[in-house]
Amino acid sequence: MDIYEESLRMHEKKKGKISITSKVAIKNQHDLSIAYTPGVAEPCRMIHKNVDDVYKYTSKGNLVAVVTDGTAVLGLGDIGPEAAMPVMEGKCILFKEFGGVDAVPICLDTKDVDEIVETVERIAPTFGGINLEDISAPRCVEIENRLKKELDIPIFHDDQHGTAVVVSAGLINALKIVGKSFSEIKVVINGAGAAGSAIVKMLLSLGVKDILICDSKGIIYKGLPTNNWLKEELAMLTNKNGVKGSLYDAMIGADVFIGVSVGDVVKKEMVKNMKKDAIVFALANPIPEIFPDDAKEAGARIVATGRSDYQNQINNVLAFPGIFRGALDARASDINDEMKIAAAYAIAGVINDTELNEENIIPNVFNDKVSKKVATAVKEAAVKSGVARI
Amino acid sequence: MDIYEESLRMHEKKKGKISITSKVAIKNQHDLSIAYTPGVAEPCRMIHKNVDDVYKYTSKGNLVAVVTDGTAVLGLGDIGPEAAMPVMEGKCILFKEFGGVDAVPICLDTKDVDEIVETVERIAPTFGGINLEDISAPRCVEIENRLKKELDIPIFHDDQHGTAVVVSAGLINALKIVGKSFSEIKVVINGAGAAGSAIVKMLLSLGVKDILICDSKGIIYKGLPTNNWLKEELAMLTNKNGVKGSLYDAMIGADVFIGVSVGDVVKKEMVKNMKKDAIVFALANPIPEIFPDDAKEAGARIVATGRSDYQNQINNVLAFPGIFRGALDARASDINDEMKIAAAYAIAGVINDTELNEENIIPNVFNDKVSKKVATAVKEAAVKSGVARI
Repeated sequence: MDIYEESLRMHEKKKGKISITSKVAIKNQHDLSIAYTPGVAEPCRMIHKNVDDVYKYTSKGNLVAVVTDGTAVLGLGDIGPEAAMPVMEGKCILFKEFGGVDAVPICLDTKDVDEIVETVERIAPTFGGINLEDISAPRCVEIENRLKKELDIPIFHDDQHGTAVVVSAGLINALKIVGKSFSEIKVVINGAGAAGSAIVKMLLSLGVKDILICDSKGIIYKGLPTNNWLKEELAMLTNKNGVKGSLYDAMIGADVFIGVSVGDVVKKEMVKNMKKDAIVFALANPIPEIFPDDAKEAGARIVATGRSDYQNQINNVLAFPGIFRGALDARASDINDEMKIAAAYAIAGVINDTELNEENIIPNVFNDKVSKKVATAVKEAAVKSGVARI
Repeated sequence: MDIYEESLRMHEKKKGKISITSKVAIKNQHDLSIAYTPGVAEPCRMIHKNVDDVYKYTSKGNLVAVVTDGTAVLGLGDIGPEAAMPVMEGKCILFKEFGGVDAVPICLDTKDVDEIVETVERIAPTFGGINLEDISAPRCVEIENRLKKELDIPIFHDDQHGTAVVVSAGLINALKIVGKSFSEIKVVINGAGAAGSAIVKMLLSLGVKDILICDSKGIIYKGLPTNNWLKEELAMLTNKNGVKGSLYDAMIGADVFIGVSVGDVVKKEMVKNMKKDAIVFALANPIPEIFPDDAKEAGARIVATGRSDYQNQINNVLAFPGIFRGALDARASDINDEMKIAAAYAIAGVINDTELNEENIIPNVFNDKVSKKVATAVKEAAVKSGVARI
């Protein structure tokens, strides 16, 4: 039985993966009068007097909605809200397991950006944070930006920032090994969707100066007729000299390649054309842009993938549970750049200098230090950057 | 420490009452690949092929949204979505404790009927049913009617139908004791909001012919200038002869009084004016329309209240968990009249003829037979009435 068949049977047997449980026993009339009427009127009255008390007396402060419209689910594409549900439930249980966060799937029966934004705004009183998930680009970026502006709770599109944070963490450690700094490297990113766009912005925040980003047609430059607004923005953020060409061209002389695209698009020759001590993050799943053995043979010194069966797995599970844990603990109004950068350095820092090597740039997802360190760092960064409300 | 203070402290200590837990362990890479990527792609693909499979592979089939706009919370009125949260969480844990239903609070930041309807429609793919809660009348009736028309999952406004079902259950048993039938009794209802309107409709379904419904200004009749659309509808359903007058007038010669209004509006004399073997359900909380001792002294044979410290407590907890359990088990597309009537008779039937007496017309909320019997009866009624999809 393969992993897919096994997963299907488990899902059928369990009928989904989440369960809502009570923190209080309701075994007699007294319990009922404390948890429900008439006693419950008292916390209601207190919150009515001071709406901030909703964090004191309810689950809101630890409750996150995992919101999708089902348009970009895994590698399956636009499969709709119902078919997205198994992934959202999976996300929810990872939130709990790795971050102690109570998360609820919300699969939306609309793909309209305005409708998604207003729906999330309307359900927001219930939640302490919103995790956007598997919404196609560039819509996901607009939705996130608008929600961040309108709501005073953290909004986080994991496909963008979760990936960017873990890529950054891996890169922090990889650069340590090869002895290069962010400011001196040339980075080529393949894939200009949710992940690629967020990686660009995060690497710029980390001090990278030279980035080219490609889509399936090659290097993105300002004014390229096929650019949507997001690609046009990325072109302006990256390709100052208006370089044109293919991914092949882009990779010549690059220090770092980051693939968040599709399998098998990087040939050994393209890695050979990179600088000495090349770093290759081939994150397409399940088939990476180039397999680790091929990349190594072609001269890459450090290779990471999205797969658990190779070393250096870039997995968002390292980021989002701790990031939300920290943001919720700080009762942050936002998850800002400072918090994301803190998360990246925290993940990287789990591996100490004696443990650090080419095959070990990023902690294993089951390393239980990760989430706690990330949460602590994110909470601190929230306080320092002025978005904490504790 | 009174019950309110104790409730407040409990809510603060627990930080809310619900918790989202995982049905599956995530302790190693294999677990992760079954519950999440890559394995989870398989149930996604199956649901994408056949959307009905969402009931087979996800939590949808047991997941209910408890939706409010915070406009009519307990007796507190329009206190807003955040202040409604403790009640909604309370409802969620009662759903679990008494019905095994996984329920999630959704407190909406809008009071606009259109916006509430469209928001619930958009989040519906996640849920197997919608429990509307504490939404002010007559908006609640319109919202429910529109959602029932638009969505193929059960929609149930508990303040309406939960109350109507339990009142009906109590009345079924009370009538047995006094030896009267639904078709021969005169019923007076005080309170023309969510509960009153639903009680009218349910009693009509049960065969009652003679009903007067009053609001704070007296008997409601067709064309009364203060009528909203719901009261106008109720006037046409009840008061065929266009009787005008006060609650005092209405109660003269009545067999049954049902108060779902405010405390202390029924005087002993008004009960004295009722027929022999009068049945008085004084359900206002915490102060009933008339206290049981006074009603008895004035000649009432059977008295029920909404309070747990008197006998014959009319409590919705007897109804909604079993109703949803049955509806979800039947994968019903609706909760229709047949299912509500089945629920009322099931609740009444928990008390057998030897147990039945004036002080015991309705089971205790902690009687564990209730929810199971209700669920079984509701599921059967769903099948018989053609709304089951199993």
